[in-house]
Amino acid sequence: MSTPVTADLGIIGSGSGNSLITPYWEDKQVVLADKGIGSTGAFGGTCLNVGCIPTKMFVRPSALARGPEEAARVDVDLKVESVDWPGMRDRIFSRVDAISEGGRNYRDVELENVELISQKVTLAPDLLSRRRASGRFAFTAEDGTSAETEQLVIAAGSRPVKPQVPGIDLPQVHTSDSIMRIDELPHRVLILGGGYIACEFAGIFSGLGSEVIQANRSVGLMSVLDEDIQKAYSVEAEKNWTVLYQRTLGAVVERQDGGVAGNPGVTAQLVTSDGREEDYDVDLVLVAIGRRPNTDLVGAEEAGLDLETDGRLAVDEHQRVLAGGKPVEGLYALGDISSETQLKHVANHEARVVAHNLENPQRLRTSRHVAIPSAIFSYPEMAQVGLTEAQAAEQVGSENLTTTVQNYGDTAYGWAMEDSYGIFKIIADRRNGTILGAHAMGYQSSNLIQPIVQAMSFGQDAHTVARGQFWIHPALMEVVENALLGLEVPIPEDAPL
Amino acid sequence: MSTPVTADLGIIGSGSGNSLITPYWEDKQVVLADKGIGSTGAFGGTCLNVGCIPTKMFVRPSALARGPEEAARVDVDLKVESVDWPGMRDRIFSRVDAISEGGRNYRDVELENVELISQKVTLAPDLLSRRRASGRFAFTAEDGTSAETEQLVIAAGSRPVKPQVPGIDLPQVHTSDSIMRIDELPHRVLILGGGYIACEFAGIFSGLGSEVIQANRSVGLMSVLDEDIQKAYSVEAEKNWTVLYQRTLGAVVERQDGGVAGNPGVTAQLVTSDGREEDYDVDLVLVAIGRRPNTDLVGAEEAGLDLETDGRLAVDEHQRVLAGGKPVEGLYALGDISSETQLKHVANHEARVVAHNLENPQRLRTSRHVAIPSAIFSYPEMAQVGLTEAQAAEQVGSENLTTTVQNYGDTAYGWAMEDSYGIFKIIADRRNGTILGAHAMGYQSSNLIQPIVQAMSFGQDAHTVARGQFWIHPALMEVVENALLGLEVPIPEDAPL
Repeated sequence: MSTPVTADLGIIGSGSGNSLITPYWEDKQVVLADKGIGSTGAFGGTCLNVGCIPTKMFVRPSALARGPEEAARVDVDLKVESVDWPGMRDRIFSRVDAISEGGRNYRDVELENVELISQKVTLAPDLLSRRRASGRFAFTAEDGTSAETEQLVIAAGSRPVKPQVPGIDLPQVHTSDSIMRIDELPHRVLILGGGYIACEFAGIFSGLGSEVIQANRSVGLMSVLDEDIQKAYSVEAEKNWTVLYQRTLGAVVERQDGGVAGNPGVTAQLVTSDGREEDYDVDLVLVAIGRRPNTDLVGAEEAGLDLETDGRLAVDEHQRVLAGGKPVEGLYALGDISSETQLKHVANHEARVVAHNLENPQRLRTSRHVAIPSAIFSYPEMAQVGLTEAQAAEQVGSENLTTTVQNYGDTAYGWAMEDSYGIFKIIADRRNGTILGAHAMGYQSSNLIQPIVQAMSFGQDAHTVARGQFWIHPALMEVVENALLGLEVPIPEDAPL
Repeated sequence: MSTPVTADLGIIGSGSGNSLITPYWEDKQVVLADKGIGSTGAFGGTCLNVGCIPTKMFVRPSALARGPEEAARVDVDLKVESVDWPGMRDRIFSRVDAISEGGRNYRDVELENVELISQKVTLAPDLLSRRRASGRFAFTAEDGTSAETEQLVIAAGSRPVKPQVPGIDLPQVHTSDSIMRIDELPHRVLILGGGYIACEFAGIFSGLGSEVIQANRSVGLMSVLDEDIQKAYSVEAEKNWTVLYQRTLGAVVERQDGGVAGNPGVTAQLVTSDGREEDYDVDLVLVAIGRRPNTDLVGAEEAGLDLETDGRLAVDEHQRVLAGGKPVEGLYALGDISSETQLKHVANHEARVVAHNLENPQRLRTSRHVAIPSAIFSYPEMAQVGLTEAQAAEQVGSENLTTTVQNYGDTAYGWAMEDSYGIFKIIADRRNGTILGAHAMGYQSSNLIQPIVQAMSFGQDAHTVARGQFWIHPALMEVVENALLGLEVPIPEDAPL
């Protein structure tokens, strides 16, 4: 065995983990391990390479390619002449890959104090006892390189889950890790799953002109959302592409004909809830049924670390990893591998907390997991923050709730759009106007939700936030103002007018 | 002379003034006077009939008709097949006119306690002495109908200004009051002015395919805005249509050829700053060089009321009209006729304050004129709130300022858009992080600015508002987060991470 690399700080994962290498570490040693992600083994984690960023770079052209239907509503006749998928893909990944490569180069070559291990690494099974004995955390790479570090951060992310069915490893079967790099836009694609990744890709491909068949195990799409949004979105999705419920994937079989980019098409064999088999001939299958934290890949359980029931690392409020229910000093986790919400903005916040705590072990800061918004960039776009109505009813009692569902179409900008489906729902405590949650589906909802995030984060009640500031007339943001004003909350005599 | 109509409340103007007729007045008498607006003499004021609302209903199709240039940046080939101006116009005004007519009918017919005078009315020249003698305010309509009311609200708005030059009354010369009802989209239109109305219509017509020539008296467009936005917008406008500076209108002369909808074209004779004359053959001229408050039409000066230097009514903090520097009890004004900002959201706020004060004369509330945002729905869209950098430098000293100009293109969503021009500028006090102003040009800026309005309205400093809430990654709203983070402000040790 070779001599272990020793360092002050070890980091497993180059996504949000990468941002931990602050100027504080300049005169100290850092070892950063990342096996790479996606079909290219890219540096920089999910968000940059196979997640948030490239997906939105496909969402935007897809939205513009939907221009004709929106324009027709307002008396403009637009037509899609063509969609240049290879051009789009190359433009997007030339940008993304350059950032990824620049990041790798900076860590690997330019920073002398950082050692990069571009391999899958596994925690030492005797991690905790060795730590007690030597004061160091140990992990080993596939080629036998091992490292020992004073502090360690596990930020190894998550990965798509695939059902173990015949044909699942065919090149025509993709996950979000590979689908964006395909050579040709599919004529017909089957998307498996009803969560945010499946819905974003259904929106992307249908907007760009592919025929989309989305198959979900349960009835309805986006089951984690507030029920009103869930239902409204399912209705819209069913109008925009084919949606099948209570279907699972039985097998994928290669065909002799069809297909794109040199591969023949496949038959996706779906199984209904009553056991019938249905065949769908498609060019590609995208499996987007969920993601699992990479705790198994790093050997977290074998190393004696605590896992939550969903397989992610258990951490305390300082992001310290737990073992036997107690935090391990100097061992942190952040992002998808430990976070309930697989969201980059949450991972980045956790990274700032961990960065502080690594540098100030005597003055630990706490991560904040309240008023976390998220958006689903499907068509229509959705956004949410806080509790669903069902959760709120459970928490404060349904008799104490007040809710509004504001139609975009009942505001001036909604008229301008001739919008017929956008909704913005707010849930508040009718006793004091505390905002408990907001849930929206419609144009720009990922941006419109921010003032509610702000109100919830700073404890502004519904009436104060509605009337204590001006809202530009007739900006679309008036949807939010009107939703707030629709709540039945107490209005003090001196409330802003 | 006929017997005067007597009432508890008189209101001149049916725009925001219309909203004063709350349930409180159900058992009291109200007289509402409005001569009607625009070419149809519509009820309901500028915003609904000839202002904010119909303009945005044209802005939206115009923006969609610009789809091809935005789509081309992201590898989608879109084409405008046609724009149906008459269909668009009829769709928009069938909606707007129905609301206007419904409003008139409700006041005129359905509400028994409201008397509607659909004429131009003038304040009694002896308004104040009669009020002292009789306790009532008096005004007279053109047909001799007169009214006497216990309290009176002047909400008679503003109107477009026209230069008194030869040909100005030709049917081919429009203001915002008439241009939206034209029968045919002009091939070539000259727009006079460089303010928000001129810029919005330049955006609308150029997007819909007209050739636009915009002529402004000074150099640059939107001179009221922060200098960075002013400059950036002028550059963009010059790319998107023809912009001429240092030009005034000398005359408009009817031609024998060209033109639209049955009228021949005109030659607009512009005069340069050095006195040269330039002829532009166009189908239509839109004069949008400013608006003046209707104080002259209601005879405010003759009635002894105080005017500001720009001709609007002087009011105190309770919206009471001043005479001889003192507030007149029971006499209020609101909206464009008295407000420094001609903005519907401000007029609506003032109307809520006036409504309260009319109903509670012993417990007057104060109107709030801080953190007033506004948007210019041109192409690109612009939005602002608070002080410009020049104003802020004057107020707190330039050495105490910190500013950032965040490019849309340096954020993830900006990449997705391949945006090359969007900017979001924030100005703060570097001593304490107080946000003094924000100024943006770019896609969705009218919505993106709201969290800054909120922060300014509730006294949230720049760092707290940036880090004390989550911002959805990668929503376009990250532009605002990044702009906030770019400011050099003190960061307390316990500041949110």
